[in-house]
Amino acid sequence: MTKAFIALDWGTTSFRAYHVDAAGKVIDQVAAPEGIMAVKDGAFEAVLEHHIGAWDKALPVVASGMITSRQGWVECAYVDCPAGAAELAKAITHHNTSSGRSIHFITGLHHLSASIHHDVLRGEETQVLGSLNSGATHFITPGTHSKIIDVEQGRISGFSTYMTGETFGLYRNHSILGRLMQGDDKDEHAFKQGVEKAFADPAGILHLLFSVRSLGLFNTIKPTSLSSYLSGLLIGQEVAHATKHHNTSAAYQVLGSPSVGGNYVTALKMAGFNVSLGDPLCGVYGQRIIAMQAGVI
Amino acid sequence: MTKAFIALDWGTTSFRAYHVDAAGKVIDQVAAPEGIMAVKDGAFEAVLEHHIGAWDKALPVVASGMITSRQGWVECAYVDCPAGAAELAKAITHHNTSSGRSIHFITGLHHLSASIHHDVLRGEETQVLGSLNSGATHFITPGTHSKIIDVEQGRISGFSTYMTGETFGLYRNHSILGRLMQGDDKDEHAFKQGVEKAFADPAGILHLLFSVRSLGLFNTIKPTSLSSYLSGLLIGQEVAHATKHHNTSAAYQVLGSPSVGGNYVTALKMAGFNVSLGDPLCGVYGQRIIAMQAGVI
Repeated sequence: MTKAFIALDWGTTSFRAYHVDAAGKVIDQVAAPEGIMAVKDGAFEAVLEHHIGAWDKALPVVASGMITSRQGWVECAYVDCPAGAAELAKAITHHNTSSGRSIHFITGLHHLSASIHHDVLRGEETQVLGSLNSGATHFITPGTHSKIIDVEQGRISGFSTYMTGETFGLYRNHSILGRLMQGDDKDEHAFKQGVEKAFADPAGILHLLFSVRSLGLFNTIKPTSLSSYLSGLLIGQEVAHATKHHNTSAAYQVLGSPSVGGNYVTALKMAGFNVSLGDPLCGVYGQRIIAMQAGVI
Repeated sequence: MTKAFIALDWGTTSFRAYHVDAAGKVIDQVAAPEGIMAVKDGAFEAVLEHHIGAWDKALPVVASGMITSRQGWVECAYVDCPAGAAELAKAITHHNTSSGRSIHFITGLHHLSASIHHDVLRGEETQVLGSLNSGATHFITPGTHSKIIDVEQGRISGFSTYMTGETFGLYRNHSILGRLMQGDDKDEHAFKQGVEKAFADPAGILHLLFSVRSLGLFNTIKPTSLSSYLSGLLIGQEVAHATKHHNTSAAYQVLGSPSVGGNYVTALKMAGFNVSLGDPLCGVYGQRIIAMQAGVI
């Protein structure tokens, strides 16, 4: 009989905790911009209690994300792909806090990649394992470092990291491309123009990026839409490369917000794929599956 | 009979002036980090006289670079490709300064590009026209925005801009990739590793870039060499894309410093091309050719 628990998704830039009942339903939640980089002097326990102090200390806490990295609370060694709930359950690191809570840390994955030798993730593994009932075999988790994750027979077989989100921010905020931009209006037409350009010549991205400036200078794209166009170029480039070996019968699911995740859905549809947007609580579901498998809830 | 003149190469971040004798030999020169972005309130004439005030005011001044842009001294309309010395000579804008100098501004080029519609350059046209006797038909001018420039029958037929230099700076100084780097040692082996990775999968650049972090984390590449590896990935990606339609009998010349230009020479040699490093004074030679054609020297 499964118990209630606290699900903790603690990443680089955000903190999210959920009070989950015995049936797996979220009955309370808290979110704060206190990612692990904002925690001073390793005061993770204090920050945790500040946010969830009111929740029953007898509830087991299941945690995943960058909180298990070298910069986090308890560093947990990566588990190698292929890995599913069984492998991740076996690798759980148990930790008791001085305030009396039991924390069960779910570690991340390492993939011995043909292209870059070593690829790694922390946090996305629980989101994917919580989304397997969608029937998709390829998952995308947009973000600073987007991951394309492949599933075979219920286990994560491999994945690739793309620096898409961080790259968008660099060009948007620190490059000459940002100078002609006025705001970040969501312009789907401009976004699709960028996706099409990238699809037509994915290896030309360092060249195509210059068009954010030249098409701005020549008023072909208006200043309020240049940001959407840039986003389309980068997401289009990622999708073109990530899907090149897949036939269009492959099912994709995007695990992200309707805003950024929605852009990926648009690009994948343009590439002819069957794609859906995942459940925002998939990470909680995945933690629950792994924790049940480990017998800690 | 050709006259002596002053050659002025005034770009976004640097000012260079050369006193050239009637035979085309540079007999004096001055360089300063006072690019057009550093000139306040349009005080171009004062900055010019500060640097070359001692040089004969009767000498014609021939100027090119971003000084002819909207942010420069006198905005000059682009000339369309294909264009050679004749077209650029015809488009010269003449300007007399209050201190009594005659300035002849050489404008830049616009290329109606199949890939990005509008592509533009200012300054590189004179460098290429001053390098035609090399016999090369493809030129690369490394920099913030690198240009690959094609020549047919003595005229510039087209070109493509790549954001390679600016992109290197963004990742080096503003991204997570810079965090593991220690200095910028020139490591040719690491540079070549990056080039090979990019050549093998040029459309995978947003993914390959993550290896600067993962190979650093796993100590596959040492912290002092990560910067060279990043440079190899980006330059390799540019070279792979820019040369994909060329057979290896094409002759390239790189118009840049032995340091950055040398990296492009290495990458082009790895791709099997016949390539040389150009003359550092090619811009002066090109200005002289255009000014002679216009009859102003």
